[in-house]
Amino acid sequence: MENILDNAVQNGKKITVLGKTASYIPELGRVNKEYLGVCVCTGNGIYHKSGDADVRFTIQSISKVISLAVALERCGFEKTFDRVGMEPSGDSFDSLVKLDLTSDYPSNPMINSGAIAIASHLVSEVSFEKMLWFTRKLCVDDDITLDEKVYRSEMDHISRNKAIAYLLESKGILANSVEESLDFYVRMCSLSVTAASLAGFGLVLASGGIHPVTGERLLHSRVVQTVKTIMLTCGMYDGSGRFAVEVGVPSKSGVGGGILSVVDKRMGIGIFGPSLDEKGNSLAGQYVLRELSSILKLHMFADYEGE
Amino acid sequence: MENILDNAVQNGKKITVLGKTASYIPELGRVNKEYLGVCVCTGNGIYHKSGDADVRFTIQSISKVISLAVALERCGFEKTFDRVGMEPSGDSFDSLVKLDLTSDYPSNPMINSGAIAIASHLVSEVSFEKMLWFTRKLCVDDDITLDEKVYRSEMDHISRNKAIAYLLESKGILANSVEESLDFYVRMCSLSVTAASLAGFGLVLASGGIHPVTGERLLHSRVVQTVKTIMLTCGMYDGSGRFAVEVGVPSKSGVGGGILSVVDKRMGIGIFGPSLDEKGNSLAGQYVLRELSSILKLHMFADYEGE
Amino acid sequence: MENILDNAVQNGKKITVLGKTASYIPELGRVNKEYLGVCVCTGNGIYHKSGDADVRFTIQSISKVISLAVALERCGFEKTFDRVGMEPSGDSFDSLVKLDLTSDYPSNPMINSGAIAIASHLVSEVSFEKMLWFTRKLCVDDDITLDEKVYRSEMDHISRNKAIAYLLESKGILANSVEESLDFYVRMCSLSVTAASLAGFGLVLASGGIHPVTGERLLHSRVVQTVKTIMLTCGMYDGSGRFAVEVGVPSKSGVGGGILSVVDKRMGIGIFGPSLDEKGNSLAGQYVLRELSSILKLHMFADYEGE
Amino acid sequence: MENILDNAVQNGKKITVLGKTASYIPELGRVNKEYLGVCVCTGNGIYHKSGDADVRFTIQSISKVISLAVALERCGFEKTFDRVGMEPSGDSFDSLVKLDLTSDYPSNPMINSGAIAIASHLVSEVSFEKMLWFTRKLCVDDDITLDEKVYRSEMDHISRNKAIAYLLESKGILANSVEESLDFYVRMCSLSVTAASLAGFGLVLASGGIHPVTGERLLHSRVVQTVKTIMLTCGMYDGSGRFAVEVGVPSKSGVGGGILSVVDKRMGIGIFGPSLDEKGNSLAGQYVLRELSSILKLHMFADYEGE
Repeated sequence: MENILDNAVQNGKKITVLGKTASYIPELGRVNKEYLGVCVCTGNGIYHKSGDADVRFTIQSISKVISLAVALERCGFEKTFDRVGMEPSGDSFDSLVKLDLTSDYPSNPMINSGAIAIASHLVSEVSFEKMLWFTRKLCVDDDITLDEKVYRSEMDHISRNKAIAYLLESKGILANSVEESLDFYVRMCSLSVTAASLAGFGLVLASGGIHPVTGERLLHSRVVQTVKTIMLTCGMYDGSGRFAVEVGVPSKSGVGGGILSVVDKRMGIGIFGPSLDEKGNSLAGQYVLRELSSILKLHMFADYEGE
Repeated sequence: MENILDNAVQNGKKITVLGKTASYIPELGRVNKEYLGVCVCTGNGIYHKSGDADVRFTIQSISKVISLAVALERCGFEKTFDRVGMEPSGDSFDSLVKLDLTSDYPSNPMINSGAIAIASHLVSEVSFEKMLWFTRKLCVDDDITLDEKVYRSEMDHISRNKAIAYLLESKGILANSVEESLDFYVRMCSLSVTAASLAGFGLVLASGGIHPVTGERLLHSRVVQTVKTIMLTCGMYDGSGRFAVEVGVPSKSGVGGGILSVVDKRMGIGIFGPSLDEKGNSLAGQYVLRELSSILKLHMFADYEGE
Repeated sequence: MENILDNAVQNGKKITVLGKTASYIPELGRVNKEYLGVCVCTGNGIYHKSGDADVRFTIQSISKVISLAVALERCGFEKTFDRVGMEPSGDSFDSLVKLDLTSDYPSNPMINSGAIAIASHLVSEVSFEKMLWFTRKLCVDDDITLDEKVYRSEMDHISRNKAIAYLLESKGILANSVEESLDFYVRMCSLSVTAASLAGFGLVLASGGIHPVTGERLLHSRVVQTVKTIMLTCGMYDGSGRFAVEVGVPSKSGVGGGILSVVDKRMGIGIFGPSLDEKGNSLAGQYVLRELSSILKLHMFADYEGE
Repeated sequence: MENILDNAVQNGKKITVLGKTASYIPELGRVNKEYLGVCVCTGNGIYHKSGDADVRFTIQSISKVISLAVALERCGFEKTFDRVGMEPSGDSFDSLVKLDLTSDYPSNPMINSGAIAIASHLVSEVSFEKMLWFTRKLCVDDDITLDEKVYRSEMDHISRNKAIAYLLESKGILANSVEESLDFYVRMCSLSVTAASLAGFGLVLASGGIHPVTGERLLHSRVVQTVKTIMLTCGMYDGSGRFAVEVGVPSKSGVGGGILSVVDKRMGIGIFGPSLDEKGNSLAGQYVLRELSSILKLHMFADYEGE
């Protein structure tokens, strides 16, 4: 396994030059775009790492997976999906068009509008401290903290998300004020994780919600099933369809360069590669995942005997 | 198994009244909307049927799966996905908007624009007779023929598809004339199948492309893997996301009332239920699939031990 | 003249029942929808009134004409039209779609996004008190004040305009903060006028910017020419085209029920009729203007000798 | 007058290099883009010419004005505007989006979809020969003929218009077949005129529908009033708003390089300048019109005494 990871990372490093870090948040733009790390977590929590797998970065949109899971646990399916759909939007992650034009609620919880809607309801249900505590548990990583610098930087460049949030408010979708909802949303985006944290979280999801070491149930299995499905159809922004074909593993990316991947019943994978393609997904990270999927036959519809 | 199917069909029949047959093609509009049949095909080709599982109806959009598979076999991945994307469109199956506004090619091969683009390329590769012969093989059903009445009726009400085809032509995507492309496309849509034919086809796909009885390889395994993934993300029109969450089985619906479902490595399922919801998917058919998925734990991310 | 006005108002009153007051701002929703008043101002300031021509109501979007005029005076043509276009948008007055999807700035200064962009620049140029003083002059009406109740009500229901403003901010179009820009914008919308005030303002515009009584030049003639043209193409929201055909007089409506009309070189017309059609234009007000245009041959392309 | 025209043409010639001829129809693409001609027709039919005012070119979209006028004469206002709106679309001339997405009929008769809808109804009302005969009369030019080469070239590159026509057919808007409707439409577009023909036509419209020499009434005055208004709001594609502000004269452009302008009650102006801007309007032609409007005070809201 270590060999496979090292090879993938070594080749992946070569293409980091082709992408860009997320420039619309200054603090993210400053990150070294040559970073590339991968971590695979299997069995009862055995970690296989290569490259910059222990470098901290902000979780960004991957937190949408956690918020969705907690919303499903706390508010239930019906209440959650009353405010946000489950359909891929076909548009970019920060689009307003479909929301304004053809629908009464955000397309899905993996785009900004959907995640802000969910955040606004979580504000009434759970404190940020509890979310942080739970995120540490899900990621099997007690060192996760709020990255204050990134948090401030995002709050200072939040016009577009404010536009989305006020549009949601005008449609009666928010349960709390725009300020509280966005503060919750941005705090969740600003949690600092590592590729290893994401791999740990991936293993929890691969195991149907069970902590791999303690055996504790952290999430209901139906919640996990729903979350994995939505990651598969909507997790890689408007590149989700191609990624599902090529890699075939429920995944969620963030503009911090992270990717969380869940190989059902087998392993969790965490990626850190802040050089992004034009859709906002880690360029080299996707390369590594394509390699791993092909070599390790990770695709959900892989045919072990097929040619 | 027969009990489970009978129960699902019996309860499903009650909701057929809530939908409508496809009215924009007169011949489809005339079908009795109370029909409901299901067939499950397992193992080496054992058929479990309930309700109207042997009634013939036209395959309609489910033929898009066959055309995509043949295009991948004949033209290869790169050439095929040069002309059509792999992303869910977020719009209805006959939408022109995204094609006109933001992209240079159809979003995916499961919507009309994508399927017409693929048909235009198949015209140069394979005769309709060969497609019919191959469809019979894939469906393990030698009685599949062209339904001349439906074919004529569709050719008489083809304005919108012509609009789509000419828009494709104006963008340089068609490889053959609009007339030839649409004739091929409509012929494929007008093949008459049964729920049992679809179940047989489903089992071939579940088996990675192997004929369940003869053991013959009909499709390459990577083609099958790709087709199943695209069915999952795009197969149920703009209801694909919710269907993936609730049923979690790669499926493709047609406005004739059919649904083809593939439970990977386990079974094929065919449905006939011509009463449609507003997205164009069989209303009672989806109910039956939700029931089967729940009882038989068919969801791709089902957790067998989870609560 | 008085006879013509009385007839038009009498018949117009009958259709006030078919429309609705603007419900999205509670204070506007409470207005009696049976009001209908018209005032025509000619020559050196002779007022002809009928119906509720002296009832006060808020100017709403008609203030966009004043703000545009002042922006052109203060910032000049180039700077003003660097931030906002001059094209009819084809969409409703509070649409975000075109702004988000296809352009870098608002379509024109008569829709909310354009007017907010202009307000944000006026904040740096002129105090609200000056705007009020100048509005009184333009309308030849010293009794115009801020309607505090409507102002508060609008500020309490401003989510959608905030969404628009933050979207503008995210595109770098605002010159001042969202809060300051919207406060300026809403104050201007909340000025209380009468049909007679609007008729006076109309006469100033009809006279090329000259005060009809004092002879003082209030606006440059090229500013007035520009303002009248934009009123003609964009002044009646997405009903501007039909209104130009049927009435043919540069006009601007507001959801308070007002319409300002300018019969070039001849007269100003003010309308108050708070019962609105679905595009947000005064229902009976448009009827009255169609009548007047037909009887008095007010259409800009009227053919005096034609049949 | 001749001096003014010569100056404008001389300066206009310098910018013809900045535009492009219409490349999507090969025959139009082959035209020398340095051509520039202007003709002003005043009083009882006195022609003032400068530059290439007698060079023949195809009328293209300017024929939409003639078709609209004839439709209004033959079918009446109500029937005509039942199938096509009067609102500027805010989109480009060959857009499908608004038609597909938000409305049941084309936005206005000056974009392709609207003109094809009108053509489909004229097919039942009047032969092409009659239209040609009437066009000659309206343009005071007996030498207008069908340019067979351009007609063939356009019929060979008609995919996009076919897409529009079939979309209209699918919405039930066409009164005759797509083939007949488009043949009529393209024939009208392929009439060969000169700047002088357009100036003659412009004078007829300026005179309210009266032939300037014979005094014969060719069009009802209300038809002319309607046509001029729609030219003003929609005649210069999605540049109509800016053109109305800057030039202020009802005009209609064609991708052949022509512009028809109507200075109400004063003159007709014809332009030929096949070098187009990105909206499809003659680049140098618009320059010439801006010059003439400024020097001769042609703007509909010009203030003769204003500064």
